[in-house]
Amino acid sequence: MRQMTTLGRRIEDESFSIIDSEAGPHSYGPGEWQVVRRVIHATADFEFKELARFSPDAISAGIAALRAGSPVLADVKMILAGLNEERLAAYGCRTHCFISDADVIAAAREAGSTRAIESIRKAHRLGLLNGAIVAVGNAPTALLEVARLVKEEGARPALVVGVPVGFVSAVESKEAVLELPVPYIVVRGRKGGSTIAVSIIHALLMLSADGERT
Amino acid sequence: MRQMTTLGRRIEDESFSIIDSEAGPHSYGPGEWQVVRRVIHATADFEFKELARFSPDAISAGIAALRAGSPVLADVKMILAGLNEERLAAYGCRTHCFISDADVIAAAREAGSTRAIESIRKAHRLGLLNGAIVAVGNAPTALLEVARLVKEEGARPALVVGVPVGFVSAVESKEAVLELPVPYIVVRGRKGGSTIAVSIIHALLMLSADGERT
Repeated sequence: MRQMTTLGRRIEDESFSIIDSEAGPHSYGPGEWQVVRRVIHATADFEFKELARFSPDAISAGIAALRAGSPVLADVKMILAGLNEERLAAYGCRTHCFISDADVIAAAREAGSTRAIESIRKAHRLGLLNGAIVAVGNAPTALLEVARLVKEEGARPALVVGVPVGFVSAVESKEAVLELPVPYIVVRGRKGGSTIAVSIIHALLMLSADGERT
Repeated sequence: MRQMTTLGRRIEDESFSIIDSEAGPHSYGPGEWQVVRRVIHATADFEFKELARFSPDAISAGIAALRAGSPVLADVKMILAGLNEERLAAYGCRTHCFISDADVIAAAREAGSTRAIESIRKAHRLGLLNGAIVAVGNAPTALLEVARLVKEEGARPALVVGVPVGFVSAVESKEAVLELPVPYIVVRGRKGGSTIAVSIIHALLMLSADGERT
């Protein structure tokens, strides 16, 4: 899975040792902590230790979805660029991001909405939301639309990774996910971003691989 | 340049109003502040206001490099995925990232170095470092190699955007850039990441466009 060199691996191991020694006590489960420490690794920001929230079934649902080759839907292309394509392909997971599609841009202009909202609607129309890992790292409007589709139209993602960053609606969009009847991983507050979404999915991929070896 | 909808634009404008009202006083120049507030916009982390450092010529050098169609070299693909390709192409800027190249991976294994180091060496061999905007958002080893090539081999990037994140060598790599005789934008400390590199280059693209309108 990892194309890291020996030196690259050593740097990563040392980084995680530093994180573990500085992070102090926490109440996360073992799988949850693998996710949180990888977010800290990607940001050097220990505040995420206070902000992460998991539904009780989030880790098992995420691992199961990956192993089942579920689609991965992202709000922005940066997330897809950061994911380990090789490992996702090995599971048969296909990745999708519709935000730059011409029909999405046109629909957003016509509806007076945002490209992010219309990209989620397009995914739902294509049947891609149900059973998918849905990762929102940038646009609170996308995450609010995911929450609406779950509540009002019965969409059932396998896992919602809700980590948009921002000053307008980001907080509210993540609080909305905490109420949903689907598995979720969220960082509360304003902070978030595509690197955080990537690190969460990367951690789930590592956990999936760990399980295979045991 | 911007494919944002009216609502998307309104959300962004409101976000920047919130940032300006919460950020408080600072001593950045106007162009520098455009960069810093866009980093805060991308992270919701006001600590970057304390961490950003600019060489005196950084903003003018960055704008000039973009307008001249200089190459943009990134350490990781996520940065390229986040950049506005359309605007870069309008200036004639080509983007490059060699970290996944087979020869880079092989060289790293053979030399016992990292893929990031070898990707920078490859760029230098190809003559792509001189006059380029070099953006490092992930790998401190890549930034240390840029610094070495500037100091020891006379490489002269147009602008070094040095914002790797991490617990091992990240701090030192950015301190090394502060000593270089080339224009730079750096965030000191452990924090950084590809979204930060993207937001810095995005701000420079906006400043370049602003200049055209005046």
